Amino acid sequence: MLRDWLMSYHPEELFDENGKLIPELKALAPVGDRKIGSNPHANGGKLLRDLRMPDFRDYGIEVPAPGAVEAQDMVELGGFVRDIFKLNEDAHNFRIFGPDETMSNRLGKVFEETNRDWNNELLDTDEFLAHDGRVMDSFLSEHMCEGWLEGYLLTGRHGFFASYEAFIRVVDSMCAQHAKWLKVCNQLPWRQSIASLNLILSSNVWQQDHNGFTHQDPGFLDHISNKKADVVRLYLPPDTNCLLSCFDHCIRSRNYVNVLVTSKHPRPQWLTMEQAVKHCTQGIGIWEWASNDAGEEPDIVMACCGDTPTLETLAAVTILREALPELKIRVINVVDLMKLQPSTMHPHGLADAEYNALFTKDKPIIFAFHGYHTLIHELTYCRENRNIHVFGYKEEGTITTPFDMRVQNEIDRFSLVKNAVQNLPQLGNRGSYLIQKMNDKLVEHKQYIHEYGIDLPEVRDWKWHVPEAK
Amino acid sequence: MLRDWLMSYHPEELFDENGKLIPELKALAPVGDRKIGSNPHANGGKLLRDLRMPDFRDYGIEVPAPGAVEAQDMVELGGFVRDIFKLNEDAHNFRIFGPDETMSNRLGKVFEETNRDWNNELLDTDEFLAHDGRVMDSFLSEHMCEGWLEGYLLTGRHGFFASYEAFIRVVDSMCAQHAKWLKVCNQLPWRQSIASLNLILSSNVWQQDHNGFTHQDPGFLDHISNKKADVVRLYLPPDTNCLLSCFDHCIRSRNYVNVLVTSKHPRPQWLTMEQAVKHCTQGIGIWEWASNDAGEEPDIVMACCGDTPTLETLAAVTILREALPELKIRVINVVDLMKLQPSTMHPHGLADAEYNALFTKDKPIIFAFHGYHTLIHELTYCRENRNIHVFGYKEEGTITTPFDMRVQNEIDRFSLVKNAVQNLPQLGNRGSYLIQKMNDKLVEHKQYIHEYGIDLPEVRDWKWHVPEAK
Repeated sequence: MLRDWLMSYHPEELFDENGKLIPELKALAPVGDRKIGSNPHANGGKLLRDLRMPDFRDYGIEVPAPGAVEAQDMVELGGFVRDIFKLNEDAHNFRIFGPDETMSNRLGKVFEETNRDWNNELLDTDEFLAHDGRVMDSFLSEHMCEGWLEGYLLTGRHGFFASYEAFIRVVDSMCAQHAKWLKVCNQLPWRQSIASLNLILSSNVWQQDHNGFTHQDPGFLDHISNKKADVVRLYLPPDTNCLLSCFDHCIRSRNYVNVLVTSKHPRPQWLTMEQAVKHCTQGIGIWEWASNDAGEEPDIVMACCGDTPTLETLAAVTILREALPELKIRVINVVDLMKLQPSTMHPHGLADAEYNALFTKDKPIIFAFHGYHTLIHELTYCRENRNIHVFGYKEEGTITTPFDMRVQNEIDRFSLVKNAVQNLPQLGNRGSYLIQKMNDKLVEHKQYIHEYGIDLPEVRDWKWHVPEAK
Repeated sequence: MLRDWLMSYHPEELFDENGKLIPELKALAPVGDRKIGSNPHANGGKLLRDLRMPDFRDYGIEVPAPGAVEAQDMVELGGFVRDIFKLNEDAHNFRIFGPDETMSNRLGKVFEETNRDWNNELLDTDEFLAHDGRVMDSFLSEHMCEGWLEGYLLTGRHGFFASYEAFIRVVDSMCAQHAKWLKVCNQLPWRQSIASLNLILSSNVWQQDHNGFTHQDPGFLDHISNKKADVVRLYLPPDTNCLLSCFDHCIRSRNYVNVLVTSKHPRPQWLTMEQAVKHCTQGIGIWEWASNDAGEEPDIVMACCGDTPTLETLAAVTILREALPELKIRVINVVDLMKLQPSTMHPHGLADAEYNALFTKDKPIIFAFHGYHTLIHELTYCRENRNIHVFGYKEEGTITTPFDMRVQNEIDRFSLVKNAVQNLPQLGNRGSYLIQKMNDKLVEHKQYIHEYGIDLPEVRDWKWHVPEAK
């Protein structure tokens, strides 16, 4: 039966006496660019053209002194992206994708140059809809938007996906599969490079306003950090100028999954554009203007990663320096999260000598982190300095004030000060009154928000200043 | 205008002269069980009835000696679940949910008692379809199945979701939201308990057969472990009797998210039912039958968690004990992953004294783990013994032999032996020949699978035995 079945295909008509495929049939196989691996439809990198990019420095914020001005990082990024649309209008090779969040993620300036794409009837009451819009966000589906972007990149074009941090988890699996796909492509010489999958996580865990517990999940960083090191990159810019520098780098890059965790609310700006470029290019560094240990051994390292942890760390430093002027404090900010991993594990990782030069081998490190504290434990697991105390999101929070979210998760300035003092045995009893004062502040905070529904004036009005000893 | 608009509602008809709602309207508010929080439709725990459960011990495997018999864990679980259907037939309060995977996850025995639910026309060629089936798997959508199960639990009933481990990531966000929901419910006294969300991850990362890299992602454990400790539970039963014991515990529990990572392929069985119940009740323990350090300090701890790591660890132990009979080896198996976390962080966590009694304070620990090695780093971060070397999935693998998957990720027996020897400085040079032998085996392995497409006979035929010194 098997023989009859196979013979029914008439192999004698398909193969010659040596069992070779006959020339007429062989000739049917496509040649040149029609071969499957050479076909631009299947190997879109062949069609990839660089974006014409404006100079991101032109969109920077003037920062006369750290914390002297406020701005909204995502609003400023919107201006930069608007002009990328302008410069590449003819090329038709750049788009934004997002589940109806371009406005709520504060990228509104792009609508000065383009619109939301809409294929259906247009009404006078529509807001920024057009048949040739380049913003794909008229569709509240993370699946659809991420899938659109993947297809767009695979056909040799450029773009990014902007989403609420908590809801990017909806496409965990899709992003993981794309990362796996890139890892394998990197092993295939005939595969042309494509633009990176850029994911902007705004409306992050610390910025929920009227949203609550359901909108809090910083775990996408954990998810992506497990993927192959040669593919994944994670950035947490602490201010507008840093965001512009990081975004410029990501949008020009190839074959990566870049995750950018960003801030959309008004907040103090720390670095000048010149400082920001230096800081982001290194990915991690000492902020000398906030430190007072120059040329000496620090007593303690105050490290931070993410916009809210950076704000609270700097506020904690002003409290510590006022109360304990003799204390030598080193402030370190992390933009490129993978710098924390050993250089043997990630191409961005610091060598142990570099890491120790920053964090010391034994001094206490109070690390305020944007996400789950366990991710910092993971990344720093093999480092020599085990005297590290990480504070991050611990699944606490509801619809409350911005500062109360931090208090509930113990990454607020008062809790950071307490933990710093508790990890400085050399202070002996001199720290006890400061700890008491911090505990009193935390009670005061709870009473105040209960009565007024907004944060303490001293929290709302806090500004960075080089403290004078009291 | 505001006044006119508000007055248009005629407040004078709705409120009395004191501004109080008039009695007729007040009377419209529902009372008793019709109040929103008391309504069984909204508070389904009120309808929850215990399942009638057969004794899981009756479904156990006879294990005359460790590794003496082979069985398929999920096939045996299917027999237990089949009889849960039988005992609760009238109650109509138990279902299986899965994306067309009940068969491929080897739960086929349940079809001796029930069918797949199907509301459409029935054909003679249908396989196990019926209008009253209790297996919801005629729909290849993780979203639909997980959502169905959540709704089913919220209405006071029982069930579980069985999925491929890699594709449960499709519902990361849904599971996280349910965990958040449970955490908040636990703070509301009027909320009645509901059955736990039970997730069975079979067809796991190490068992891909004809599937490849796309089907490999053990990160769901990382995802859930970040959620609130009072809600999440993670179990990795090493054999059939342990799976039966863990499943029985999970299906009876309330208000948890239980994750069970299971094996579906034929593999050696280690524990008798009596041993399994003791082991799973403790969640972690020394396997004395595999160890040779009784009453002494071990030279090394060989720890394992998950079915494949357990097999490779035991195989490595036989090699080590044959080659280095004087070496004192302690074998520890972990079923309940959260035992590794400090008792201060998770209710299941071991106290430091308990942990040190098992793992010692300073002896090298070679830990073979089912998932990403970073999760073990996370969970054990605060433990005293830092001499731990974890091996897990590192995003390597394709369509290859089962053993080659382990070799590519360095959790195979030969690599574990090498790492054990390299972490025993006291061996001096006596270990060098053993390392050489292991390297030779790894070359032999690659040559053999390249030629024959299956694993080395000594790997396929390996059986646990108490080694005699050579």
